[in-house]
Amino acid sequence: MDFNRFNKQLEFIKEIDKLKHVRRRSILLNGERRENSAEHCWHVAVMAMLLCEYSNSPVDAVKVMKMLTIHDIIEIEAGDTYVYDTAGLKDQEDREKKAADKIFGILPDDQNAEFRALWDEFEAAETSEAKFGKAIDRLMPLLHNVGTGGEVWTNNNIHIDQVMNLMENGIKAGSEDIWQYAQQTIKE
Amino acid sequence: MDFNRFNKQLEFIKEIDKLKHVRRRSILLNGERRENSAEHCWHVAVMAMLLCEYSNSPVDAVKVMKMLTIHDIIEIEAGDTYVYDTAGLKDQEDREKKAADKIFGILPDDQNAEFRALWDEFEAAETSEAKFGKAIDRLMPLLHNVGTGGEVWTNNNIHIDQVMNLMENGIKAGSEDIWQYAQQTIKE
Repeated sequence: MDFNRFNKQLEFIKEIDKLKHVRRRSILLNGERRENSAEHCWHVAVMAMLLCEYSNSPVDAVKVMKMLTIHDIIEIEAGDTYVYDTAGLKDQEDREKKAADKIFGILPDDQNAEFRALWDEFEAAETSEAKFGKAIDRLMPLLHNVGTGGEVWTNNNIHIDQVMNLMENGIKAGSEDIWQYAQQTIKE
Repeated sequence: MDFNRFNKQLEFIKEIDKLKHVRRRSILLNGERRENSAEHCWHVAVMAMLLCEYSNSPVDAVKVMKMLTIHDIIEIEAGDTYVYDTAGLKDQEDREKKAADKIFGILPDDQNAEFRALWDEFEAAETSEAKFGKAIDRLMPLLHNVGTGGEVWTNNNIHIDQVMNLMENGIKAGSEDIWQYAQQTIKE
């Protein structure tokens, strides 16, 4: 056993415990509290196990699952940027890339490269896997918001047109089926 | 799009939001609060992406990851049974099987069968994937307990011999390497 390697892996594993303290805007379906980014990553990973049949083009479901499992780890450093926060969105890319350098950099080189490649691909949103992963990542907050009476949208003065635009941009390229569902759900 | 099928999948996805409210004994590394089972499932899934090289025998890392991602979903119905709770452990198997029938039963038949097979295999702890998955599932609470000064063990009157026995039973069959690390860590 290479203890130097194992120690780097353990250091990363302990570091990412912090993702459980990063709060998202979404409120859990029972209305009790806001969601954290670790449990969100888990939820969308399970969704990847179930919903890939709705992707516009065939996808490697395992890659979608892996991308979604790790996609928010950078928020430990960069924080969760609310998708309607236009000021925060301006420097989001820069902040998140620095965070990826730092956090994935804890890992041994080969695993750093693997995690970074998955994260870069997800962020670029160009491959079928990344597009579908993004669609799932948008669907879940929609379910949370609709399931809790749109409270977060109301509190943040988000208009239905903004929701519709964001969902169209985030979901349609990955899944016309889920986009169809999202449209109906928002209108209701 | 088969809306009947999609609605079953969505119902399951909404149902498992409840796993975020199932509290485990483990305290997060910053000492702030107890962990919930959803964020725990996420954490061990990431560990599966990183640590399969330490399995005693070669494993399908994707299967380990999938098993760990869904392994605690049954706790929504059955609750989290503390591994040192001898009374709770007596009817744990029965409670959890009923829970699996109910929760995975929300899914379309093919996906119910897929999730149930993964969960059954994990619980049986006979295949290399299940044994290694179990080892990871034991390692993380050890890291949490050691990282928070063993507070949970002290509060529940758990003796070091009990910890050592549980770790040996849970880890050694999956990974001699991780068992070696665990022994050192507990002794320190």
